[in-house]
Amino acid sequence: MELKIGVIGIGAMGRDHVERINERVNGANVTAISDINKDVATAYAKEINATFFENAEDLIASEDVDAVLVTSWDPTHEGYVLETIKHNKHVFCEKPLALESSGCTNIVNAEVEKNKRFVQVGFMRRYDRGYEEIKRELQTGSLGETLLVHCTHRNEYVDESYNTPMAVENTAVHEVDALRWLLEEDFVTAEVRLPKKQTTRTHPDLHDPQLILLETESGTVIDLEVFVNCQFGYDINCKVVCEQGEIGLTNPTYYSVKTERKDSTRVPSDWKERFISAYDRELQLWIDGVKQDHITGPSAWDGYMASVTTNACSEARDSGKIVDIKFESKPELYK
Amino acid sequence: MELKIGVIGIGAMGRDHVERINERVNGANVTAISDINKDVATAYAKEINATFFENAEDLIASEDVDAVLVTSWDPTHEGYVLETIKHNKHVFCEKPLALESSGCTNIVNAEVEKNKRFVQVGFMRRYDRGYEEIKRELQTGSLGETLLVHCTHRNEYVDESYNTPMAVENTAVHEVDALRWLLEEDFVTAEVRLPKKQTTRTHPDLHDPQLILLETESGTVIDLEVFVNCQFGYDINCKVVCEQGEIGLTNPTYYSVKTERKDSTRVPSDWKERFISAYDRELQLWIDGVKQDHITGPSAWDGYMASVTTNACSEARDSGKIVDIKFESKPELYK
Amino acid sequence: MELKIGVIGIGAMGRDHVERINERVNGANVTAISDINKDVATAYAKEINATFFENAEDLIASEDVDAVLVTSWDPTHEGYVLETIKHNKHVFCEKPLALESSGCTNIVNAEVEKNKRFVQVGFMRRYDRGYEEIKRELQTGSLGETLLVHCTHRNEYVDESYNTPMAVENTAVHEVDALRWLLEEDFVTAEVRLPKKQTTRTHPDLHDPQLILLETESGTVIDLEVFVNCQFGYDINCKVVCEQGEIGLTNPTYYSVKTERKDSTRVPSDWKERFISAYDRELQLWIDGVKQDHITGPSAWDGYMASVTTNACSEARDSGKIVDIKFESKPELYK
Amino acid sequence: MELKIGVIGIGAMGRDHVERINERVNGANVTAISDINKDVATAYAKEINATFFENAEDLIASEDVDAVLVTSWDPTHEGYVLETIKHNKHVFCEKPLALESSGCTNIVNAEVEKNKRFVQVGFMRRYDRGYEEIKRELQTGSLGETLLVHCTHRNEYVDESYNTPMAVENTAVHEVDALRWLLEEDFVTAEVRLPKKQTTRTHPDLHDPQLILLETESGTVIDLEVFVNCQFGYDINCKVVCEQGEIGLTNPTYYSVKTERKDSTRVPSDWKERFISAYDRELQLWIDGVKQDHITGPSAWDGYMASVTTNACSEARDSGKIVDIKFESKPELYK
Repeated sequence: MELKIGVIGIGAMGRDHVERINERVNGANVTAISDINKDVATAYAKEINATFFENAEDLIASEDVDAVLVTSWDPTHEGYVLETIKHNKHVFCEKPLALESSGCTNIVNAEVEKNKRFVQVGFMRRYDRGYEEIKRELQTGSLGETLLVHCTHRNEYVDESYNTPMAVENTAVHEVDALRWLLEEDFVTAEVRLPKKQTTRTHPDLHDPQLILLETESGTVIDLEVFVNCQFGYDINCKVVCEQGEIGLTNPTYYSVKTERKDSTRVPSDWKERFISAYDRELQLWIDGVKQDHITGPSAWDGYMASVTTNACSEARDSGKIVDIKFESKPELYK
Repeated sequence: MELKIGVIGIGAMGRDHVERINERVNGANVTAISDINKDVATAYAKEINATFFENAEDLIASEDVDAVLVTSWDPTHEGYVLETIKHNKHVFCEKPLALESSGCTNIVNAEVEKNKRFVQVGFMRRYDRGYEEIKRELQTGSLGETLLVHCTHRNEYVDESYNTPMAVENTAVHEVDALRWLLEEDFVTAEVRLPKKQTTRTHPDLHDPQLILLETESGTVIDLEVFVNCQFGYDINCKVVCEQGEIGLTNPTYYSVKTERKDSTRVPSDWKERFISAYDRELQLWIDGVKQDHITGPSAWDGYMASVTTNACSEARDSGKIVDIKFESKPELYK
Repeated sequence: MELKIGVIGIGAMGRDHVERINERVNGANVTAISDINKDVATAYAKEINATFFENAEDLIASEDVDAVLVTSWDPTHEGYVLETIKHNKHVFCEKPLALESSGCTNIVNAEVEKNKRFVQVGFMRRYDRGYEEIKRELQTGSLGETLLVHCTHRNEYVDESYNTPMAVENTAVHEVDALRWLLEEDFVTAEVRLPKKQTTRTHPDLHDPQLILLETESGTVIDLEVFVNCQFGYDINCKVVCEQGEIGLTNPTYYSVKTERKDSTRVPSDWKERFISAYDRELQLWIDGVKQDHITGPSAWDGYMASVTTNACSEARDSGKIVDIKFESKPELYK
Repeated sequence: MELKIGVIGIGAMGRDHVERINERVNGANVTAISDINKDVATAYAKEINATFFENAEDLIASEDVDAVLVTSWDPTHEGYVLETIKHNKHVFCEKPLALESSGCTNIVNAEVEKNKRFVQVGFMRRYDRGYEEIKRELQTGSLGETLLVHCTHRNEYVDESYNTPMAVENTAVHEVDALRWLLEEDFVTAEVRLPKKQTTRTHPDLHDPQLILLETESGTVIDLEVFVNCQFGYDINCKVVCEQGEIGLTNPTYYSVKTERKDSTRVPSDWKERFISAYDRELQLWIDGVKQDHITGPSAWDGYMASVTTNACSEARDSGKIVDIKFESKPELYK
């Protein structure tokens, strides 16, 4: 039985997921779409043989929709997620879960009230084979306790609309979730260094690069370079320093070339090239989970924790100080 | 619309494909199975919600089967493939297409008569991202003409039933097809060296390792080490030496570890770990192709050419001489 | 003409240099030694066919000594260096040049007064082929301006006498000098983070690992992990992030092994294995320079700058604050 | 006491060694030179403060010469080596020891008669850290018996005077000696494949690339690609396949660069860049050995064995057949 998916928001990310569901992963079809751009969405609905809903609430309520995928404009996420929960349907929501951590709290409360998880947040790093293998190795305990983590999050370039706060909220948020999951710990302090020396490729509204320092409950310290105009490619690194050794993500490569006195491998151009398999697995496992009415991916609580952590980073950046990260106690549902 | 697949032969490989079709790839379901082991097959059919056919010919003819996947005992391949063609249905057949090259010729003739390709042979290397990227790079011409190729095909170990001829027929056959596809040329001579020095991990019926030398029409020479008890993992290498540089397959790795004075990455344990993505893509693209009634993967002709090449290798091994490889001229259908 | 070298202090480091001069590098011989341990030194002097001087000052003054190498107990460095300058002889002094930066100032003043450089400090990283090639690449300008530097300084283990301050003074001091030389800039601020999570391999007097953050005049930020009980080997990393790309030190390896599902290269066991060539080149070039009465290696001023920088790191560690680094203006002699 | 070295032949190689002896290694000086080009040699002798001998025999006989280094025109090697042995002096001779293997036999006989080794042949690969570490690893036995070896010997380009036979005699000869030393075995058969497909960068007198196959006494098979116009750099590879794993030479690298979507390390431009340390160690150890009147490097017998092996390769190339390698039994002196 194919799962019927309704997709709200058919921008680049939304269409990417539609294509994924309809052409690559198993067990689901996109049966309904909604978007504020009626003309484009109507045409697209026809193309993929889905129903167009002018009103997203109608899509959510529709009997032809088993589960909902929210890839709309960030400010609308919270409302659509809450609405879907109301209908007792599963919902996959791209980050951020809500604009403010208070919005995340609303969603958490809605789930807690129903005592059931409906929400999965689109933190796809957890589905990357590299992160998964590192987590498995750490769990064997053979390397001892984790002491430090060194990360980089580098994009080849960003457009003019990308500004200083986004380095935390849109970029570092991936490491924030991935490291919480990897280390199985929450963060307690945040510091952000804005180096005086910036790349000439940036613009007045964007401080680039930035250096973020996080500390976990047990005292592990993470340094994270965010550099979104690095020019040379999409370069995600994560090295976990343990008592007995270091384990690090490698950028998977498929071929190497020796020419002109260089021996080289490719650096990916963007997140799509680097993480496409992770996105595919993320959706496949979400669909499998929805069918069994039991989802295990990043939860509304994870969305909330990412939100309070990035909020603290922003405060640390603005104040130039080390900021304590405060959060509610975790409801039983998420333990 | 989900494609209805009938699977003949539900050994390890057959079940692997069933799982792939039903759980990972898009657009198809296994609706029918057949196997000589009736009890096991009946139970399995129930488990996956498919119909069991005692007679494979009935499965092939069934209206509930759109296309056929042949993963049965090698000697039965030819017959089932021919039968499927008779019904004008698409058939995916694991290697070998037939035991003898004359059997491959029969299949080629059946297709030529109908002037349509129905058959795809299970040479999955062509769907590996590494091979694909190397081919794309070679096609740009930036490295110039291909001069030499150095390959290894290493398995961690084989069981006692694996014997000397199988090193060519079951193992080297993968490189034979992959290199014909990569270089877009046929082979004209074969030589096989059986080194006096063998591993102590082998047994009397298996000469291990072996060194195979092939030469293409244009004069490119390939050396291929086949070593099926190498103990350390599944290790596929392919280095293409060109006029302007060398391009080689890398073993994709996802993490690295520094511990005990070693900096190491993982070597895969077996073909499943190394090539699982290639198998998934192979089936996905076959299903997509069948739906459009237009398949582009390894053809019956490729199966035939692999067969005449490995036959020549066997003769070269037995005679200790350099053997010429003879083959029919390629029918228009496959050009 | 062989240069006659007098060595003060024949502990491990001193003997290492004696062996280097007498057996590996060109153009010099150790003709005189002095050490507080008279018996051992007398025997050793005999063994290497040198004269033993009970009094280091006599060694410095001896006509049989052209230049002096100071590898004695740290607190004695300043005095011996000043004495050698008095005799207008060249002196190579292992780090630290003096215990306090004021001692370094005394030496700088002594040179400035004579308007000549006599002193070379034993910062051997500058002679490592990796650092040299990185500097040459940075100087071409093809990677643009330097923005960030990520470093690690890891030792397999240290003995019980190694304590928290030594992580800065004896260990990080190498990066302090190497990075000043590499970036051709001085440091202006220091911060030290002592992560709550420490390795269980440490002891009460040693906080391990530590994270040091330095900022240069132009605003480049450096993070440096010092981890001296990392267990897995001696692991020096230095990645320089520029506007157009990243350039990093590799640990030179000479062979790789595939066995037991691992593909591995060796991590050096200690600084001797990692930097032996750098030590050899350092001494060869110093000897060549002395013969031409023109030395170009790390100067007394570099020793002073390393001292004020590490002092600031220590203050930053103790205060938990970001500390400004203050230093005198550079005398003409060192420009 | 500095060893007094006389150098016969001051072409590029000769001057390279002069510089090495006078400026980098320990314990020797070039006191005498001889060369057929009198004017150039006289000037050079003056420059390096050595005596010029018009007659090489006079140089060999001179009391101001303790040991001789032969880097003259290949056809003169045998004569100068024999003359030096006559004077009971040590002689280092660049390859080839003699033009024909019969010439090598003359030298071997001269040593056997005096029952002492005087000759070291300039096979510097044995002094490369990579080869040394591989040999040490093989000797531990942890990888089991050696089964196969895959080698490449690639030069960026050669000049017009380089012809087909030189690929064996001047190029492959390095692997011939290095592998005899590494495997501690002699070769018994040789085969040479001249691929029809050649690089367009070659000329009518040079078949490029070539593929050489050697077999050792115990049955280990070696394949060696010689490709002297590979365009991309000097690329020496040697992978030893054993029962329990593979061990291979890595090209030592000192830095890596990520830029323009590539992560790359440097390929050396030539043998000087790749093997300079090996040349330095070779000469240092030879000087040390001469001083102790006990040399351990590649012997006249090794020169003889290299000669008979390359002769067999040449015969194999010309005949297109697998050729048996015949050699004398090894005199007691060399065991």
